[in-house]
Amino acid sequence: MKWSHMMLPTLKEIPAEAEAISHILMIRAGLIRKLTSGVYSYLPLGFRVLKKIEEIIREEMNKKGAQEVLMPAIHPVELWAKSGRLEALGEDMIKFTDRHKKINVLGPTHEEVITALVKNEVSSYRQLPLIIYQIQTKFRDEARPRFGIIRSREFIMKDAYSFDCDIKGLNENYKKMYEAYCEIFKRCGLNYIPVEADTGIMGGDVSHEFMVLAENGEDTVVCCTKCNYAASLNKAECLKPGQGQNTKVKKSKQEKCKEVKTPGLSTVKDVADFLNLTPDCLVKTLIYVADGVPVAVLVCGNHDVNEAKLMQSLKANQLIMADEALIKKVTKGPLGFSGPVGLQDIEIIADYGLLDKANFVAGANKPDLHLMNVNIDKDFKVCRWADVRNITDNDVCPRCTNKISIHPAIEVGHVFKLGTKYTDTLNATYLSEAGKSSKIIMGCYGIGVTRIIAACIEQNHDKNGIIWPKQISPFQVVVMPLNSEHTLSMNTAEELYDQLNQQGLEVLLDDRNVRAGIKFKDADLIGIPIQIIIGEKNLAAGLVEVKMRATDTRDNVPKDNIIAKIAQYIKEI
Amino acid sequence: MKWSHMMLPTLKEIPAEAEAISHILMIRAGLIRKLTSGVYSYLPLGFRVLKKIEEIIREEMNKKGAQEVLMPAIHPVELWAKSGRLEALGEDMIKFTDRHKKINVLGPTHEEVITALVKNEVSSYRQLPLIIYQIQTKFRDEARPRFGIIRSREFIMKDAYSFDCDIKGLNENYKKMYEAYCEIFKRCGLNYIPVEADTGIMGGDVSHEFMVLAENGEDTVVCCTKCNYAASLNKAECLKPGQGQNTKVKKSKQEKCKEVKTPGLSTVKDVADFLNLTPDCLVKTLIYVADGVPVAVLVCGNHDVNEAKLMQSLKANQLIMADEALIKKVTKGPLGFSGPVGLQDIEIIADYGLLDKANFVAGANKPDLHLMNVNIDKDFKVCRWADVRNITDNDVCPRCTNKISIHPAIEVGHVFKLGTKYTDTLNATYLSEAGKSSKIIMGCYGIGVTRIIAACIEQNHDKNGIIWPKQISPFQVVVMPLNSEHTLSMNTAEELYDQLNQQGLEVLLDDRNVRAGIKFKDADLIGIPIQIIIGEKNLAAGLVEVKMRATDTRDNVPKDNIIAKIAQYIKEI
Repeated sequence: MKWSHMMLPTLKEIPAEAEAISHILMIRAGLIRKLTSGVYSYLPLGFRVLKKIEEIIREEMNKKGAQEVLMPAIHPVELWAKSGRLEALGEDMIKFTDRHKKINVLGPTHEEVITALVKNEVSSYRQLPLIIYQIQTKFRDEARPRFGIIRSREFIMKDAYSFDCDIKGLNENYKKMYEAYCEIFKRCGLNYIPVEADTGIMGGDVSHEFMVLAENGEDTVVCCTKCNYAASLNKAECLKPGQGQNTKVKKSKQEKCKEVKTPGLSTVKDVADFLNLTPDCLVKTLIYVADGVPVAVLVCGNHDVNEAKLMQSLKANQLIMADEALIKKVTKGPLGFSGPVGLQDIEIIADYGLLDKANFVAGANKPDLHLMNVNIDKDFKVCRWADVRNITDNDVCPRCTNKISIHPAIEVGHVFKLGTKYTDTLNATYLSEAGKSSKIIMGCYGIGVTRIIAACIEQNHDKNGIIWPKQISPFQVVVMPLNSEHTLSMNTAEELYDQLNQQGLEVLLDDRNVRAGIKFKDADLIGIPIQIIIGEKNLAAGLVEVKMRATDTRDNVPKDNIIAKIAQYIKEI
Repeated sequence: MKWSHMMLPTLKEIPAEAEAISHILMIRAGLIRKLTSGVYSYLPLGFRVLKKIEEIIREEMNKKGAQEVLMPAIHPVELWAKSGRLEALGEDMIKFTDRHKKINVLGPTHEEVITALVKNEVSSYRQLPLIIYQIQTKFRDEARPRFGIIRSREFIMKDAYSFDCDIKGLNENYKKMYEAYCEIFKRCGLNYIPVEADTGIMGGDVSHEFMVLAENGEDTVVCCTKCNYAASLNKAECLKPGQGQNTKVKKSKQEKCKEVKTPGLSTVKDVADFLNLTPDCLVKTLIYVADGVPVAVLVCGNHDVNEAKLMQSLKANQLIMADEALIKKVTKGPLGFSGPVGLQDIEIIADYGLLDKANFVAGANKPDLHLMNVNIDKDFKVCRWADVRNITDNDVCPRCTNKISIHPAIEVGHVFKLGTKYTDTLNATYLSEAGKSSKIIMGCYGIGVTRIIAACIEQNHDKNGIIWPKQISPFQVVVMPLNSEHTLSMNTAEELYDQLNQQGLEVLLDDRNVRAGIKFKDADLIGIPIQIIIGEKNLAAGLVEVKMRATDTRDNVPKDNIIAKIAQYIKEI
């Protein structure tokens, strides 16, 4: 491809709309352009990367015997009502009323559609197992689309679904998909970590996320520094005080509970500072509504509630924070001064972190007042103990009790053992060899195809631009005649371009009539692994310069030797 | 691929939902399944065909230097308001309000988006010409989705857009795309005709449609039986009476206009029968509303108004038939009895077919009354003469005046010289070499990718099923061991399957444990070009049978010779 004929608009400036480095570079290198909030066009360079990722995914899925299909974006709303997920997805789901007044939704995922399809087409154990997949556009009306294509409203997903007679089959297919995912992410040049994950609204028992560590990641990964334990923040278990190396504080003698004035002070920090205490001497009381029922959740002042773990613990399908009116109704006190003492008709759930607490400070459910020397059992009862908080740097690995590290990450893949969640609600059964009707066992497996591009750039860039891994680079080689008015340079460039193309390489020829400085900067920005630089002086000596983008190593190579040399370079990277 | 592991559900029965043969066969052969009205899933076999068509399109587009991109389905409504097409598309456009209360539309086509993109990225003549294309899912809320994927609400289109400095450039790119389309349709095995076409809501001056003659086509193609004139019904010109071989009736002496009772008779046929006249002795008067203004349109009783030609003639953007209330208001008479005599404050447009009419019958604008002996000029005035009717079998070729033939057809492609229709409204300009700012000149070029599958089946089938052209067939060879309990048959089948796969062929192995009769019927139904039939008797003699699906020719081939033989067969088809 010749640059002068390509829609490849590079930008010098950092675009105002972008914060994440991948977003900035995707715009600057002419990969994408925004059409409207969370909605992007892929320009030719971006599209080439996208296609390469899709082909890698396709190859690895096909190797595992998965079959490709294409399901539609438009779904009848009734199907989602039947599965019970219409409410769970809420405003994330895009809905429209058609000209015949029927409500349709735009598919944010396809468990419902594939299950309905398989229910109709599969009736016997003879037709199982099956793995079906598609690479298709999904729609989610994100509240805050951000980081370019990392969190967008329209994106491409590879979604796969396995169907088995039994758990043994599911386990085998889950393993196949897990292996395929490892291979896919490796081939895409990603440094990824598979982590134990929460199943969320997908349902099922077991789930892993494939995480790419990246500064701009919206997810959080917890890794053991010693053993191979890794989990998402929503899944990482916190040991109880005294378990492993977590320090257990010896409980002090229980003092008498008393009110203390805390005028206008409603945050943990403010109250702790005012009382000259550390935050862990306080207990936070948060009122949630789980499937319509209010609950009070207690965590230490230095901890945060993890809502995913709370939902799991409550087996709730929906969880929202109570609003001010409900807090007043439930606690009889104002917002910011909630506490467990005196609460009535509400379940109190305490995080395990409170197990060793004594004489702590909590809200008094009265304006501008807290309670000191609160003690469990003496001053109030806990209905349920559970692990409902975020793990912190001060915690230890729940497996080996060694030190953990916590990192921001981008989720690029997610696999779930769904079991019969969807085949139950949509009644998808098969007849066994013995003639018995049973529910089909499902797994589901997603990859954020477009998101891989951004994740890859987050991990592969320097101050000058993108550094593409060979396998998903839009081109392997860029040929740069520095002086486009110098006939010999241009002819040599065209010649090399033709020869390299004939070798089956993907080559970009920067034939633009622009200054050498712009060609250098743009080549680094768009990140093609190998640059062939054709300068007048070198050329007079029969040489061209080869620069490796990743390492900045440069080599003067005899022009007549360049084809063999490039083949060798490509093997090496 | 092995049949037993594939989701390839064939059906014996004709599905109740389908009328067109392509629709019936696509369901019976397990290519597609309906999810909701006008919305389909592509199962593995259908998806393979789809991918092959996409690859052919991609190759031919790339050969012409077109660059692939991917634009989004979600568009901000403002963009469509700006181009003025929001109204023109009306209820066909799917709209939704997002969580931030903004209205978005789902793209039915992408002229607006690509023009906005190019406006931002192209500023100089140096960046032109450009041809940009995508293969992408489109959404149109069709009033009556039908014939399966021929007229559906969600479908895949290849849409390309050319951008040039001048008309000469546009003409060159238009020719390139026209040539690419011919090659694409040829490679897809379609017997197609390029025809002159109406530009419709796309706008522009020149347009061609690529039509596939098919019984279930919703479009109509007019071909000359002698010269190479071909046009869509909406474009085909009708000569005036007396022109060419169209007979000109000598006008009779004008009689006096008089009322005649036609109680309850409002159709041409009923009135003609009642008065013992032929339909061509009557004139139909239809009231339309063009861009909000009522007009009366007159055509002979044996002719039909062509609304596309009427719109062109009126240069109207929107045309709807008047409802009963408006007819009453405009004509002062009831529905079914409209006529030109006495009409006031309304433009009367007469089709050229009325040029030689005298003493004709028309509605009297009074209940149960018609007028006889109506004559133009004497009884009413025509404001405008135009060609606004459908051509008929009785017309002649407008080029060479020989006999024409009229056929139902499926439109698979459409190319337009748009000119500056979109660059005007969206203000997309470039600076010429001389530094002058001018509007960019556009063309647009669409192919109904999914529709090609159906069009191909309409043209390539027999009573037993589909007959795939080699290039888009989901597999080239199907291997059928007739007795799956006979070990030698199965082993031989597996062996051939492996060998053929190693040759790079796409092979389907029918390893199902079903009767031979079912394998025969299913193989014919799914239409793979070459069947290798492995029977016990033949095998004992070292032979396998090769059947060519298209011709039903059969050949017993020595088993050890089969690989070479198949290679030869594939060359021949």
